[in-house]
Amino acid sequence: MDFSEELFASGNIRLDAQLKFTAEIDRMTSVLRRTLLLDRSRCENDAEHSWHIAVMALLFEEYSLEKIDLHHAVEMLLVHDLIEIYAGDTFAYDTEGNKSKSERENAAAEKLFSMLPAEQGSRICSLWKEFDASVTADAKYANCLDKLQPFFHNMLTEGYTWRNAATPVTKVQVEKRMACIKEFMPQVYIWVDKSISLAVKQGWLS
Amino acid sequence: MDFSEELFASGNIRLDAQLKFTAEIDRMTSVLRRTLLLDRSRCENDAEHSWHIAVMALLFEEYSLEKIDLHHAVEMLLVHDLIEIYAGDTFAYDTEGNKSKSERENAAAEKLFSMLPAEQGSRICSLWKEFDASVTADAKYANCLDKLQPFFHNMLTEGYTWRNAATPVTKVQVEKRMACIKEFMPQVYIWVDKSISLAVKQGWLS
Repeated sequence: MDFSEELFASGNIRLDAQLKFTAEIDRMTSVLRRTLLLDRSRCENDAEHSWHIAVMALLFEEYSLEKIDLHHAVEMLLVHDLIEIYAGDTFAYDTEGNKSKSERENAAAEKLFSMLPAEQGSRICSLWKEFDASVTADAKYANCLDKLQPFFHNMLTEGYTWRNAATPVTKVQVEKRMACIKEFMPQVYIWVDKSISLAVKQGWLS
Repeated sequence: MDFSEELFASGNIRLDAQLKFTAEIDRMTSVLRRTLLLDRSRCENDAEHSWHIAVMALLFEEYSLEKIDLHHAVEMLLVHDLIEIYAGDTFAYDTEGNKSKSERENAAAEKLFSMLPAEQGSRICSLWKEFDASVTADAKYANCLDKLQPFFHNMLTEGYTWRNAATPVTKVQVEKRMACIKEFMPQVYIWVDKSISLAVKQGWLS
């Protein structure tokens, strides 16, 4: 977006940069995902998704097998999709799109996070990279929620995303995607597993 | 929303309650505020607003006069508007609506938070009450951001909310609303103060 410079002239260079970044990330509201909102009015956007899973993080910690630094996990969830402002949302089951994903996302991170004062930009960038690598316990927990929430939305919207994919989504694909939950939140996976069976029975998954 | 019970039958009563709550709070996406999104496509909803100010909390801590427990402040910001799912958004400058606000919000809190396992429900309810009382440093910081963000959006949308209010919003009203920032984040208030003057000059505030 292109705003008048007059609006970012506090006389404090750090603050002006932080305010510009704050304006820029409002664009998360126009990055649409494949997930339908539960009232089925439209597809969810990245801002809504990020908020939803951040609240979930406050509720589902008890199911993780490893101890979580909840604040760190929440911070990751709040910023994990910011790079999609420039890189777009890549559909989980889009094989072609996922080939160029990493390159597009790195360029987006460089462009976006360099708007901030250096140490803040690199802190947010580190959070995103940690989420993306999914190696630490906090990142695994965050990734589980990032996968659980759209799965949950699909179950509550008669498999909307799965049924509307260019190629029908299969049970095996979803099981593979949910494997992190099976490993890291096995009690939650009991529900996921039952739900996958229900989705197959209903014809939402092939 | 009314979902099939079959979808919440993990065999784990706690988990089922947490999943139902997760579904219910998706309704934050249909609680519309008076603030315009920065791309001016539509008004912002509570989910987007909550996400935006939670990210801001990660960036603006350095300006608060008191030491902040950032995690606690972020938790508050994530849940501070949940009760609006039942109580609706009350416009800041709506005198009549604000008279019944407290009663409506308490009833909404009781209804919503009782969906969760008791200790989680009362934890989230406490966060909301702490935010609402705005006495602790964390709550003051959270309240500053909750007021700074819509002000910022108004500045970037030519005073949209102010110009579209039933009664024109005045400079004095906005200054009163921003007083918490003047007190708690004075460096940020320098920008707010300049912006208010600009808004008056442009005719967005009377």
